[in-house]
Amino acid sequence: MMENIFSEKFFLSAAEVNAEGEMSIPLLTSRIIDVATAHANSLGIGNPSMQSLGCGWVLSRLAVEMTRYPQVNETYCISTWVEAWNRHFSTRNFAITDAAGNPLGYATSIWMVINYVTHENAGLTHLHLAPDMVNDTKVPIARPGRHVVGQPTETPREYAFKYCDLDFYRHVNTVRYVQLLINSFSLEEMDANMVRRLDLAFIREGRYGETVRVLTHRDGNHIELSLRNAEDEDLLLGAGVDLCPRNTNA
Amino acid sequence: MMENIFSEKFFLSAAEVNAEGEMSIPLLTSRIIDVATAHANSLGIGNPSMQSLGCGWVLSRLAVEMTRYPQVNETYCISTWVEAWNRHFSTRNFAITDAAGNPLGYATSIWMVINYVTHENAGLTHLHLAPDMVNDTKVPIARPGRHVVGQPTETPREYAFKYCDLDFYRHVNTVRYVQLLINSFSLEEMDANMVRRLDLAFIREGRYGETVRVLTHRDGNHIELSLRNAEDEDLLLGAGVDLCPRNTNA
Repeated sequence: MMENIFSEKFFLSAAEVNAEGEMSIPLLTSRIIDVATAHANSLGIGNPSMQSLGCGWVLSRLAVEMTRYPQVNETYCISTWVEAWNRHFSTRNFAITDAAGNPLGYATSIWMVINYVTHENAGLTHLHLAPDMVNDTKVPIARPGRHVVGQPTETPREYAFKYCDLDFYRHVNTVRYVQLLINSFSLEEMDANMVRRLDLAFIREGRYGETVRVLTHRDGNHIELSLRNAEDEDLLLGAGVDLCPRNTNA
Repeated sequence: MMENIFSEKFFLSAAEVNAEGEMSIPLLTSRIIDVATAHANSLGIGNPSMQSLGCGWVLSRLAVEMTRYPQVNETYCISTWVEAWNRHFSTRNFAITDAAGNPLGYATSIWMVINYVTHENAGLTHLHLAPDMVNDTKVPIARPGRHVVGQPTETPREYAFKYCDLDFYRHVNTVRYVQLLINSFSLEEMDANMVRRLDLAFIREGRYGETVRVLTHRDGNHIELSLRNAEDEDLLLGAGVDLCPRNTNA
């Protein structure tokens, strides 16, 4: 029997954690995508069912909000469900919980299907999802916002995409973008703060060999980041990061 | 009942593959470490059992040799066992197989325990492994070699380690090293060739903010790579990569 909520348990091994001994936000992003993929595959609406059409899912927007991250050697669970489904896109939500079922955080995302030969939006009409597989339960966090940096408050950094940054679609992997953005912060700052919320809006894909500029606008603990082509300033991605001080009493 | 061979199955999702639609060598390295970690934990000789001592496992040497990599949407299996165990280090082997049990490749590795406060070698004498948990089955590949580049044949590249490159020990994550080395190759070259064999020998850990130079010596399809501190030339890592042409008839 198929369920409209799909859950997977994970063990956070020592090899996977960040310098603070907890789950990193790039790894969380990776797990969120993996769980979404596994659920879609189990429902028969995943990439394997579209392979002959040359189509596949792409993440368009993502918001993640965490009150606590799993710690090293901790078991955690990610649950996901399709909140909304229409001919253009799908909204998929996530709940991250500890081993006892206590909430650690939530995520909400928007997905589209592209033809990875033409790189055009292919729509969802060729996929069949039974109506009872949609579960309109909301998550208690704001929808993904779109952040665009107007006036940077910091010196832009440059980065050229390399071979290992590419994914199946031969454009830049989502997790590499998250690493590139989070590398804007120093070890000292991340020892003192955690990422409370991350917003990602993907505008256009990054290409092999392309040099991008990371533009940053800081306003206290709210940081907006944009990735733009270093030459023509074409926008690839807009992101928002909210930091909050770590609980030093823990 | 405990087994001296530990196996785990994985599904290679679209989000995980490289530009050629197959498992990347950085991901394979990550899975090898995860499976080793899970097996050690199940035997009571993992990091959780050493947490109070401030000790943990570090990978010292690794050799991986593959005849074929798992493809997108393929299920594969990694099996691991402890081939040798002494007071200084442990040799751990791996077999990578497809869903039908056919071999895809093998790996062999040497692990040590360090005190991650003092960063000194702590030895294995405080760990108890039952003799029947050692399985001296060899793998049909050469032991990890030590490669050091004398005269580079290519212009060295520089890289400064950033926040997301760090792991639990607050030094550079093994997978980041592999990405840094493999990024020496172009997309065109990797479309035409696969990594048949990778050798890694870790000499000393990389630090936050440290700038390293990637030195490369090419001799046909055999490439030796060294990572050295950009200022004092201190050696961090020696690596060997053997490429072989992809089977274009596949």
